Amino acid sequence: MLQDHVRLSLKDSSHDVYDILASLQPYDISEVVKGLEHEEQIKLLPLIPIPLAAETLEYLEPELQYHILQHLPISFSTPLFKQMSSDTVVDMLLAIHPLQAERLLDLLPLDYRKKINQLMTYPEDTAGSLMTVDFISARTYWSCEQTLQHIRKVGHEAELVSYIYVTDTRGILVGVVSLKELIFASPDTHLENIVTEEIVSVPAEMEQEEAAIILSRYDLIALPVINHERRLVGIITVDDVFDVIQEEATEDFQKLGGSQPLEDAYFKTSSFQLFGKRIIWLLVLFIGGAYTSNVLSHYQDAVNKVVALSFFIPLLIGTGGNTGSQIVSTLVRALGVGEVAFKDVFRVIRKELLTGLLLGFSLGIVAYIRALLLHVELNIGYVVALSALVIVLWASLVAAFLPLLLHRLKIDPAVVSGPLISTLVDGTGLIIYFTTAQLILHV
Amino acid sequence: MLQDHVRLSLKDSSHDVYDILASLQPYDISEVVKGLEHEEQIKLLPLIPIPLAAETLEYLEPELQYHILQHLPISFSTPLFKQMSSDTVVDMLLAIHPLQAERLLDLLPLDYRKKINQLMTYPEDTAGSLMTVDFISARTYWSCEQTLQHIRKVGHEAELVSYIYVTDTRGILVGVVSLKELIFASPDTHLENIVTEEIVSVPAEMEQEEAAIILSRYDLIALPVINHERRLVGIITVDDVFDVIQEEATEDFQKLGGSQPLEDAYFKTSSFQLFGKRIIWLLVLFIGGAYTSNVLSHYQDAVNKVVALSFFIPLLIGTGGNTGSQIVSTLVRALGVGEVAFKDVFRVIRKELLTGLLLGFSLGIVAYIRALLLHVELNIGYVVALSALVIVLWASLVAAFLPLLLHRLKIDPAVVSGPLISTLVDGTGLIIYFTTAQLILHV
Repeated sequence: MLQDHVRLSLKDSSHDVYDILASLQPYDISEVVKGLEHEEQIKLLPLIPIPLAAETLEYLEPELQYHILQHLPISFSTPLFKQMSSDTVVDMLLAIHPLQAERLLDLLPLDYRKKINQLMTYPEDTAGSLMTVDFISARTYWSCEQTLQHIRKVGHEAELVSYIYVTDTRGILVGVVSLKELIFASPDTHLENIVTEEIVSVPAEMEQEEAAIILSRYDLIALPVINHERRLVGIITVDDVFDVIQEEATEDFQKLGGSQPLEDAYFKTSSFQLFGKRIIWLLVLFIGGAYTSNVLSHYQDAVNKVVALSFFIPLLIGTGGNTGSQIVSTLVRALGVGEVAFKDVFRVIRKELLTGLLLGFSLGIVAYIRALLLHVELNIGYVVALSALVIVLWASLVAAFLPLLLHRLKIDPAVVSGPLISTLVDGTGLIIYFTTAQLILHV
Repeated sequence: MLQDHVRLSLKDSSHDVYDILASLQPYDISEVVKGLEHEEQIKLLPLIPIPLAAETLEYLEPELQYHILQHLPISFSTPLFKQMSSDTVVDMLLAIHPLQAERLLDLLPLDYRKKINQLMTYPEDTAGSLMTVDFISARTYWSCEQTLQHIRKVGHEAELVSYIYVTDTRGILVGVVSLKELIFASPDTHLENIVTEEIVSVPAEMEQEEAAIILSRYDLIALPVINHERRLVGIITVDDVFDVIQEEATEDFQKLGGSQPLEDAYFKTSSFQLFGKRIIWLLVLFIGGAYTSNVLSHYQDAVNKVVALSFFIPLLIGTGGNTGSQIVSTLVRALGVGEVAFKDVFRVIRKELLTGLLLGFSLGIVAYIRALLLHVELNIGYVVALSALVIVLWASLVAAFLPLLLHRLKIDPAVVSGPLISTLVDGTGLIIYFTTAQLILHV
């Protein structure tokens, strides 16, 4: 509706489009922009004040950002491009053709261009690739008054003005001063006298996920990033960390479902790419699960004699898989957020076996009733009930132990997906079932 | 190691313990505290300056916070308690006995006590329960100079000083002024002239998950919370939102694994509670899966004639379940973060059927080879291969459609767990398999 309103105003230039958008947040404007035709986008952007337009652009996909920038009149696109935050600029430049990127970079002042070029060298998924260079830094020997003047000058370009990072003359990170401290100190105090030196910083080469965990653990709004000489090279802000945490959770979901994680959003991934991400695990599981056929062919005499035994195969192995899946999903996540570690292995196994005993008894009773309802022999009922109990216990043990072991071996425990644990307990479940049958029915 | 160092210093009071801890962040000190004996904790805390001690306490569990507060000398515990942030205080008071809570509340000044009592009335999991009242607010008619003086006075108690929320005389939220704007405006400017009125706020009754999404969507550091009269009652800060987002992701993991979400951390949940969370779905799946027995008993003549058919049952239905599990885990997450919606249903189904076709052909070939290796009849090989293809396609269709449908019906799509989709395609997979067998083998 809002979109249609904007659309109409763009056609009929007697209305001021900006009036409609003035009360919106940049995110909301970006949603309107996304829904417009490309010509409308090009018409709309120049009607928005540059700082707001730059913020709006930041919520769009890199390809769309470039597409819009490229088609705007140069008198508008240049200041707009300069106003965009450095991490957004880097993401965009990395998404387009190097030649296009070079042409855009030529629009920037030399020293900013150097910084951007530097940022582009950090490998994907590192702290360096996540940080912005639009932070405020000050020198230890500056006075508070001097620093405030500096903020007045550069503050409109910074992503964060509440914290000023203090470096020595060589650019080495010394500490942080909050804007509040700066105001409340007397104007001629030197920063070295009020700087907080106990601060958390991370190296630019650190994995972005690790940096995200540190920022959230210490409840920070921004995390300074240093190079190998301890020089301050950028800051990671909390909003970028949100995205990282969401991405990592998405990857874990996909792994837990038995797929390799997608690199892109669902609709940006083609069927061929989906196939590539899924087929590997499906084949591993298929080949791993193929031994169930051997198990069954080994017991074919028993099945031949008592065909009713085969009726309960899917139900029993399914129950083992379900129990295992419940446990691994809980444990993989608990390992991921650091709630559980390998040292807890005996506590975990004891807890899961006790729970498994309760679950196994309950399901055993239900399985017995189910067998009776199918009018099979009473003895088969006992076999099914006892097998249900033992299978649940076995699945509990395997599902409790494996994720912890992998974590201990520095392998991502999310490898133990629901499908993997199901496949693992399928064949062993069959062995349990037929062994029980042989013991009770003597087949 | 650090802990042992602290321990030794506590025993041998000639060392100053605080020297060891002075360079640490509150979170790190809290980790040391967690590892100490209770008597050591009581000895250590009073050696730390109160603001740092209060921040340290915030990282501990509510029960431990109370346990420590209760045993500290009153001259230390009272100022410490007052210094703690209001959301932490509320969580602690709600975790202990109401009588204990009342006794603690008596230590607080009357107006703060009233605020805490009010905070305690918001239902769990709402924005109101997540917010803090330790924010800075100012009136529209105040001058910048006046406001700065106010900050100087109350700033040390606030959780966030970078943003000052502006209300009218009735306490109704008008907008926000950043500390930077306050400094750079001339001292006698009234706030109403510089206030930003376009701000995002949420009602106290809103679900905390929704509030968390809004804060992260708009890249905010804090989100003001208003009551039904639009009066400003608190703010939600970004660090609390991190916790909410992590909790919600943990719940979705557990659901996707086929369990009801746990209310507490893994080790705080007893085996009986785990049993309670898991048995419901296991029973539903068991009873839902019980029709596989009927399917098999219906086809028992075929199994009797060609016992080799039974060898491939676990492998084929397992493959259907695995395919389904890969799809639902991807789609449930994509629905959760808003990447996919019901309107995309045809795009999703087309994409998944095409992917399923590729997967089905690949697995069909492997299944055929597998059958040959077991030295079964050639025709059974065809049956297994064709069934693998059709089962994968069928599982793709069901797994693509169901989560979208549930989302559309306002049911949490995470209900379609891996185990549920496996159980759903188990029985239908058997029907596909035996129908194919009847067509090709004429049994």
